[in-house]
Amino acid sequence: MAFSLKACDKDSQARRGELQTAHGPIQTPVFMPVGTRGAVKGILPQHLCESGSSIILANTYHMLLRPGADIVERLGGLHKLMAWNGPILTDSGGYQVFSLSSLNRIGDDGVEFQSHLDGAKIYLDAKVATKVQNQLGADIIMAFDECTPYPCEQLRLERAVERTIRWAGICKESHSRADQLLFAIVQGGVDMDLRTFCSRELVGMDFPGYAIGGLSVGEGHEHMVNTIRHTAPLLPAEKPRYLMGVGMPQDILAAILCGIDMFDCVLPTRNGRNGYAFTFNGPMRLRNSKYIEDTGPVEQGCTCYCCRNYTRAAVRHFCIVGEMLGPILLSIHNIHYYHSLLASARLHIEQGDFGPWARAEIERYLQSGYNQALKVENEQ
Amino acid sequence: MAFSLKACDKDSQARRGELQTAHGPIQTPVFMPVGTRGAVKGILPQHLCESGSSIILANTYHMLLRPGADIVERLGGLHKLMAWNGPILTDSGGYQVFSLSSLNRIGDDGVEFQSHLDGAKIYLDAKVATKVQNQLGADIIMAFDECTPYPCEQLRLERAVERTIRWAGICKESHSRADQLLFAIVQGGVDMDLRTFCSRELVGMDFPGYAIGGLSVGEGHEHMVNTIRHTAPLLPAEKPRYLMGVGMPQDILAAILCGIDMFDCVLPTRNGRNGYAFTFNGPMRLRNSKYIEDTGPVEQGCTCYCCRNYTRAAVRHFCIVGEMLGPILLSIHNIHYYHSLLASARLHIEQGDFGPWARAEIERYLQSGYNQALKVENEQ
Repeated sequence: MAFSLKACDKDSQARRGELQTAHGPIQTPVFMPVGTRGAVKGILPQHLCESGSSIILANTYHMLLRPGADIVERLGGLHKLMAWNGPILTDSGGYQVFSLSSLNRIGDDGVEFQSHLDGAKIYLDAKVATKVQNQLGADIIMAFDECTPYPCEQLRLERAVERTIRWAGICKESHSRADQLLFAIVQGGVDMDLRTFCSRELVGMDFPGYAIGGLSVGEGHEHMVNTIRHTAPLLPAEKPRYLMGVGMPQDILAAILCGIDMFDCVLPTRNGRNGYAFTFNGPMRLRNSKYIEDTGPVEQGCTCYCCRNYTRAAVRHFCIVGEMLGPILLSIHNIHYYHSLLASARLHIEQGDFGPWARAEIERYLQSGYNQALKVENEQ
Repeated sequence: MAFSLKACDKDSQARRGELQTAHGPIQTPVFMPVGTRGAVKGILPQHLCESGSSIILANTYHMLLRPGADIVERLGGLHKLMAWNGPILTDSGGYQVFSLSSLNRIGDDGVEFQSHLDGAKIYLDAKVATKVQNQLGADIIMAFDECTPYPCEQLRLERAVERTIRWAGICKESHSRADQLLFAIVQGGVDMDLRTFCSRELVGMDFPGYAIGGLSVGEGHEHMVNTIRHTAPLLPAEKPRYLMGVGMPQDILAAILCGIDMFDCVLPTRNGRNGYAFTFNGPMRLRNSKYIEDTGPVEQGCTCYCCRNYTRAAVRHFCIVGEMLGPILLSIHNIHYYHSLLASARLHIEQGDFGPWARAEIERYLQSGYNQALKVENEQ
């Protein structure tokens, strides 16, 4: 088995696991920085490593448009292109097709859409999405799914679930590389019956891992957590569970409580580029004039490159004058912050006190004004 | 003495020296990357070190406008702000005042100008420029000068030289920190008599180092080299000589032949941001479609972070899709390239074959089309 559990929390569903991939093991729960177009924005692999990244994500949709799957394959695959010799996960492209592109036609077989870059017509279905991900060569690849918005009409939601299930079967059949783990994605919006149906169907097909998709699209924290709490136990305990595109620190902790193992989100890098720092004492807007003469590090006690070397005043200065170094340093710090959060979660699960620790942390996060301060959307 | 000569070339004026500063020694001839606003654009100090940077430059004009000299001083000086514990040089602000700002009034005493950012009125004279540089705290500071454009009316040129000489005296008198070396700047455009006059007057005042300013402003390679060849021997052999804002690899080698020791230029970083790489085989425009599937490094045999880890195809991809990593990687490579060029120059001076080597290299550069490919101006 690729996945093994090392510890389970006694008063929650939280699990501490290890996932084996062709490029090494991953300790879960894990956060995966997003390298949409083959690069985690502004961060060199050296700093990703140093910040604690063990697996990074790339977006199939973006790599398919530029430079193209054939080219990535001929260049030796994503690992070579990204100069990242650790594990990589690619999504299926479904989310971006439905959110970024102009859709020409959605059928039961697949989707024809126009590139958001140059309007070029592209056809994607389960078979093509799988072939493309085989070419990109990530360690974990995702089944092609139909991601629905929130709110969503019941009929559309049902049809999306049906297609997602059928497409998952086609992906499994056409998947051709033994060194890649193919995960299926559970859809169904916030409809618990549909989530149950979708989960059971996909579990019956026996994938090496399962994702919960279609969340963090506007449904809000409570709906999201309810859906995760409902869906996670429907997925096999012995397989890794991945919550796609989530999210805020409190969302991640809440999802770990429900038994989720893997996360990705653009929040640390996007907020970094916009001058925001995540800290354990709440969010900081570094452009704020109160930091003009602040000689402390962004976060006291933090061991990231930014905090070891720069003052808040310096980071503020770089953000204010528009120097790349501001976004670069804050992205490094924020990625380090997310990895520290997940490292703490892993430690508390091992220690057996994750439940009370996580609940207290979530409360603290909710009160620290993260949601208000960081008004951002997901970019997947 | 802060400066000591280690070797002199036998058939040119080239020198191999060592300059002691409060933050350590510098091996000359040396190239100084430009950190205009307190950061070498896109490059962390860690990568500057790794690329061979031993001293970096910051612009007084920019730091004076934001965050302000008082604030930099209270933050502990430029070294702290920039997270750079090696030597730093600040220019006098003169070049930027005359090239970037709206001038309200130039008098014999000083200059009133408007910030190019918000139109705020600022007054700068020799005393203020020196005080500001004392506050910034660089290891080497520059006397306030009047930098003339090319071409320039004779009367204006003469007046600028007179002022530059008078202001240099005031700078010397008001300079208050023993840990900072104050260099004077020779002006005079391409008028050899004025260069002679200015050099003699400044040398009489006994500065620890001398710069040649007002070149690389449109006069062309031949005028530039003639002016350097004329001026350098007028400066004391036992003091470091700094050619400001120059330049292209062939210009640097030509200037070393004339006895110049120090250089700064934005070309490596600016061209990096624009997708150009400097290589010993000529310039490369990485956006060119011929690199789409090129799996070689930007420069074969180069040991920089970019060339050790990324293919030309990957760097091209990042440049094409607008990922920060493209400019970052090319800036790292280009800085490394400049330092390698200067390291070779130092080695050849030590070996005693600098003259023939440099002349052959200059010829090679001129034929490789650098000037045509890299249509860029100086940003100082």
